[in-house]
Amino acid sequence: MSEKKIKVAIVGASGYSGQELLRLLLMHDNVDLVCVTSRQSAGQKLTEVFPRFCGGGGDDLSFVAPSIDGIAASGAECAFLALPHGVAVEFAEGLVDKGLRVIDLSADFRLEDVAVYQEYYGKEHPSPVLMKEAVYGLPEVYGEKICDARLVASPGCYPTSILLPLIPLLREKLIAADSISVASMSGASGAGKKADTSLLFAEINESVRAYGAPKHRHLSEVEQELSHAADTTVKISFVPHLMPITAGIYTTIFSNLIDAVNAEKVGEFLQAAYGDSVFVRLRGEGGFPDTKNVSGTNFIDIGWVVDERTGRLILMSAEDNLGKGASSQAIQSFNLMFDLPENASLMHF
Amino acid sequence: MSEKKIKVAIVGASGYSGQELLRLLLMHDNVDLVCVTSRQSAGQKLTEVFPRFCGGGGDDLSFVAPSIDGIAASGAECAFLALPHGVAVEFAEGLVDKGLRVIDLSADFRLEDVAVYQEYYGKEHPSPVLMKEAVYGLPEVYGEKICDARLVASPGCYPTSILLPLIPLLREKLIAADSISVASMSGASGAGKKADTSLLFAEINESVRAYGAPKHRHLSEVEQELSHAADTTVKISFVPHLMPITAGIYTTIFSNLIDAVNAEKVGEFLQAAYGDSVFVRLRGEGGFPDTKNVSGTNFIDIGWVVDERTGRLILMSAEDNLGKGASSQAIQSFNLMFDLPENASLMHF
Amino acid sequence: MSEKKIKVAIVGASGYSGQELLRLLLMHDNVDLVCVTSRQSAGQKLTEVFPRFCGGGGDDLSFVAPSIDGIAASGAECAFLALPHGVAVEFAEGLVDKGLRVIDLSADFRLEDVAVYQEYYGKEHPSPVLMKEAVYGLPEVYGEKICDARLVASPGCYPTSILLPLIPLLREKLIAADSISVASMSGASGAGKKADTSLLFAEINESVRAYGAPKHRHLSEVEQELSHAADTTVKISFVPHLMPITAGIYTTIFSNLIDAVNAEKVGEFLQAAYGDSVFVRLRGEGGFPDTKNVSGTNFIDIGWVVDERTGRLILMSAEDNLGKGASSQAIQSFNLMFDLPENASLMHF
Amino acid sequence: MSEKKIKVAIVGASGYSGQELLRLLLMHDNVDLVCVTSRQSAGQKLTEVFPRFCGGGGDDLSFVAPSIDGIAASGAECAFLALPHGVAVEFAEGLVDKGLRVIDLSADFRLEDVAVYQEYYGKEHPSPVLMKEAVYGLPEVYGEKICDARLVASPGCYPTSILLPLIPLLREKLIAADSISVASMSGASGAGKKADTSLLFAEINESVRAYGAPKHRHLSEVEQELSHAADTTVKISFVPHLMPITAGIYTTIFSNLIDAVNAEKVGEFLQAAYGDSVFVRLRGEGGFPDTKNVSGTNFIDIGWVVDERTGRLILMSAEDNLGKGASSQAIQSFNLMFDLPENASLMHF
Repeated sequence: MSEKKIKVAIVGASGYSGQELLRLLLMHDNVDLVCVTSRQSAGQKLTEVFPRFCGGGGDDLSFVAPSIDGIAASGAECAFLALPHGVAVEFAEGLVDKGLRVIDLSADFRLEDVAVYQEYYGKEHPSPVLMKEAVYGLPEVYGEKICDARLVASPGCYPTSILLPLIPLLREKLIAADSISVASMSGASGAGKKADTSLLFAEINESVRAYGAPKHRHLSEVEQELSHAADTTVKISFVPHLMPITAGIYTTIFSNLIDAVNAEKVGEFLQAAYGDSVFVRLRGEGGFPDTKNVSGTNFIDIGWVVDERTGRLILMSAEDNLGKGASSQAIQSFNLMFDLPENASLMHF
Repeated sequence: MSEKKIKVAIVGASGYSGQELLRLLLMHDNVDLVCVTSRQSAGQKLTEVFPRFCGGGGDDLSFVAPSIDGIAASGAECAFLALPHGVAVEFAEGLVDKGLRVIDLSADFRLEDVAVYQEYYGKEHPSPVLMKEAVYGLPEVYGEKICDARLVASPGCYPTSILLPLIPLLREKLIAADSISVASMSGASGAGKKADTSLLFAEINESVRAYGAPKHRHLSEVEQELSHAADTTVKISFVPHLMPITAGIYTTIFSNLIDAVNAEKVGEFLQAAYGDSVFVRLRGEGGFPDTKNVSGTNFIDIGWVVDERTGRLILMSAEDNLGKGASSQAIQSFNLMFDLPENASLMHF
Repeated sequence: MSEKKIKVAIVGASGYSGQELLRLLLMHDNVDLVCVTSRQSAGQKLTEVFPRFCGGGGDDLSFVAPSIDGIAASGAECAFLALPHGVAVEFAEGLVDKGLRVIDLSADFRLEDVAVYQEYYGKEHPSPVLMKEAVYGLPEVYGEKICDARLVASPGCYPTSILLPLIPLLREKLIAADSISVASMSGASGAGKKADTSLLFAEINESVRAYGAPKHRHLSEVEQELSHAADTTVKISFVPHLMPITAGIYTTIFSNLIDAVNAEKVGEFLQAAYGDSVFVRLRGEGGFPDTKNVSGTNFIDIGWVVDERTGRLILMSAEDNLGKGASSQAIQSFNLMFDLPENASLMHF
Repeated sequence: MSEKKIKVAIVGASGYSGQELLRLLLMHDNVDLVCVTSRQSAGQKLTEVFPRFCGGGGDDLSFVAPSIDGIAASGAECAFLALPHGVAVEFAEGLVDKGLRVIDLSADFRLEDVAVYQEYYGKEHPSPVLMKEAVYGLPEVYGEKICDARLVASPGCYPTSILLPLIPLLREKLIAADSISVASMSGASGAGKKADTSLLFAEINESVRAYGAPKHRHLSEVEQELSHAADTTVKISFVPHLMPITAGIYTTIFSNLIDAVNAEKVGEFLQAAYGDSVFVRLRGEGGFPDTKNVSGTNFIDIGWVVDERTGRLILMSAEDNLGKGASSQAIQSFNLMFDLPENASLMHF
């Protein structure tokens, strides 16, 4: 294993994505964690806030208040931003200016079109130039661009689970671009570590509920990327649901096959797209993924069935919303950016 | 409250539907529970098998082995069958012959067409005449027929959650009959009290997984009833999912609105259909149901959103799979059959 | 069933105890709910805040801001206080002055000794005269006093689960008063509906943790009542634990039998104490209670084993922390105060 | 990292301990997994039975039926036995005879005294000579003996959680040997992957229940080891509870301090015992462990409080029942036996 060590900062390390970044980067053989910031935990030891990490190599780290100068002064070559939407943009600009490479887990740089940003986020984008430069951090699609990126906009959890199954099939025009409906089910960590009574254990336990339909913010990046794949404007219906699990997203996608003969090609094209992929695991036709099989990992499992009675293809994917849906996927981009093996320190089961 | 007491038997009372029937019938003011059968618990006291019910009026009851003669000899006027599919048919025939009215919670009498039965259940129906006579026990649709029925085929849990939102809209031709896709999420009790390692706590906890697609057995009764409503053959796509909750079904339905102007009529027609209903609660446009609000009850909550971007209507329903999806709905039919108030002893919250 | 209707107010109805009071009082045949208060939900309809209760008889109720005059003006004869500790005292005084009978679910009036109050709650008791008058609301112990009380201090959830198993045995001097150690496990609703990140689903799910030892506030009332029973000062060790369940408390109690011959008397004396009780269900020696059997009810199940190898008696109890541990027990007191059957509208399973 | 590779077999790899061994050994840099057996999954690919492990280095492995000759023929130098009690003994004898070193996760070789074995397991020990030779696999206590052992009897999950906190304190005579009472709470995986309706999700969810008291089988090994530490016969009271979590054990221990002055020494002696330990993490006085912090790891977290009012010391420990309570602890022994760093491939967070 390479002895190379990259100096890394995590900005906003006390939320759930930040905690998962911490977990994975503390175990990463090629990472030297030099700076972890948290507004609310500044001054506290890492292991005080997260006793889970005691003895894990970060026992000497303490949280500091976030500041661009402070992060730069830590010597970090790369910064992961696990900040709320709207807050990340400022740090991204400042840190890129200081010469750091930045992987942003927020939505601030995922869109290409300032008008779409305005429509979905309700305000003008404060940094449109950098927005243009940012690379959408889906390594299975934009791997080469990620290698050279200064700023990677790491995808959201729902988008990853929708995009990876659909992109190869839209590219090959196997399914009708206007026929896509998606039901996604997310674990509670996806809602963030927020002091909100609707997220209490006693509210989420024994509860299943949809929310945010029909125009969830993540739709904007999903449709942007699906439209690229289809080479035409794609609009989908999307219903997210909140589930009583801690981590994991399950996504079930309905779409119409263009013609019946394409049924057998589904597996073929998915295989062509992902046969060499480390982290996309095809469960085959009739194979049902399970969030249980991907929790804590960077894998996304994809299965499908063809409903001949209705002419529909039903795709299903399972990922860890904090893993392939957030933090481990960001590290996959990091590995590419710093010329490490794509799976470096990501092969957990 | 009426002093009328109906003598009732529960046949197959040790599974989850049986247990919920027990719970509700022990609390039912107009029921005298005279016989509870269970092959595996025969000879044991009711309160030994279900300590929850101690002190609840059934302390003197013991399970007996099921036999048609025994049940008839108990004096029961009505028998609820909570038996496996294929087993119920024999008891239904025998008990109807003995003059009892029967409410069957299995799938044995839900279909009208022997060919469809054969297709989905893989064998000839053993009692095609009685099959014709049986009334599909959805009180909001077949209330009048249920009043006079000798044999009620109480609907499955998934079907109830799909049929009630869709039937009024298909009747009024607001949505395209060939555009319906359904994702349902069921609690683990829906799989029954079976000694199967895939149903262990450690397998289902922190797990979300689809199964049984694209041709789940329940499709047959769903499509039969939707076709009646639409007055044309309806075929849908249906994906059931298993969730880590004990009880509850959440169903999300995608369909295409026939034309945009119909959007405002959705609420109008649902209101017309269910405004007087005791147990269907409309949450309105933008209202998201939650399984938490219906657990342990006979309510089904229905909400919807119109996705103008795609022209789709998205309907959502929540019910308790053991309640409105099974046992309390069966009791709703019982109330109608015995001329009791429809909600007698069903107003639990 | 009696047609008598008591006019009732719930003060502080938006927390978990308040919600359970609402549920049970809406279903109570002898209650006319005339006033529900909530600082944070004032102005909202009851069914908007709690969609579960739609169609349940409270559809016309709205939350009002709490005020003594307003509550009195509602015509309420009895007020349940589901307010935070320290806030309840003011309402209790004001409402008793106005002639209402009050059932306080907070800890404000549970202690007899102002010095103990000061020690455990860190401040002087603001209403020592009323404190003396208040009756500790454990119906199995103080049933007669409760009948005539103006102010009932309804016990905490942990205390109920500890006191009911121990009191008869301490009275009869079967166990050594200085030998008692208690491990209790509580569901997450016991921590209240607080916007606190440590209570989020993702924090409590898959987590078991002790807290609050060795001097939890509830110790004060537990030791007060145990000392009364033993007729000597009793001090116990008590460790509460937080469990990933919504509702329920399980309490396991270790104590030394005074002498071996007493082993057989344990069941005898518990039977003598609770044989006629509606809500205490003895599971017998070797009978293990289960929170699952009491959730949503006013039952407390008690079992025990004698550990002959060590001379210890191990008692176990299970109750719903929001039921017998809070709201349904308060209603049991209410039934006694207003000369209703003790179990009126409490026989849910 | 050492390039050394040990050839390893897992015998009985389809249960929960076996699955965790698989997970950890597939990721172990110094292990070459040459043989995995399972009676029920024989002939199936590893990744078919456990899709979680796809892409994890074991894609070419298939389960074989267990046989001593077959295992020996695989070239394995070491065999882990994850077999039911009573079945392991036969394989242990046969494999040791063939020259393999064996780590047995069952209870078959944990006791020293054939009479105690007979008392707790109800039959004569079939291999008393090998029983004498076996080393109790608690590395923090028997590390040196484990290094040279041919047969390690890896401890049970409850025992580990009880022994590690108590042993140093009994050795130093800080607590009274006859004063110990233990309440343990275990996740559902501890009950094994058994087709038993009492272990279904719908039975364990929202349930807390004690079982197996007062004479659980694990008591025998606990008391054996505590007696060694105290140098006198120790008998304790022990109540295991089943919790709705997948993995984890929480143990709360009550004991009497010999004299008050010892209170401050508790931390001192625990620190002396475990200050250099990799896997025992002391949370300090007033520090409450949490199963959430140790799940999936080989850590055990220990905290304590002194209850001055009663003179008791209350110790609390948290471990993963499949980790430090079973499989990762077995691998810790393996690391010692094969002269690898004690924490080789065990530093997961």
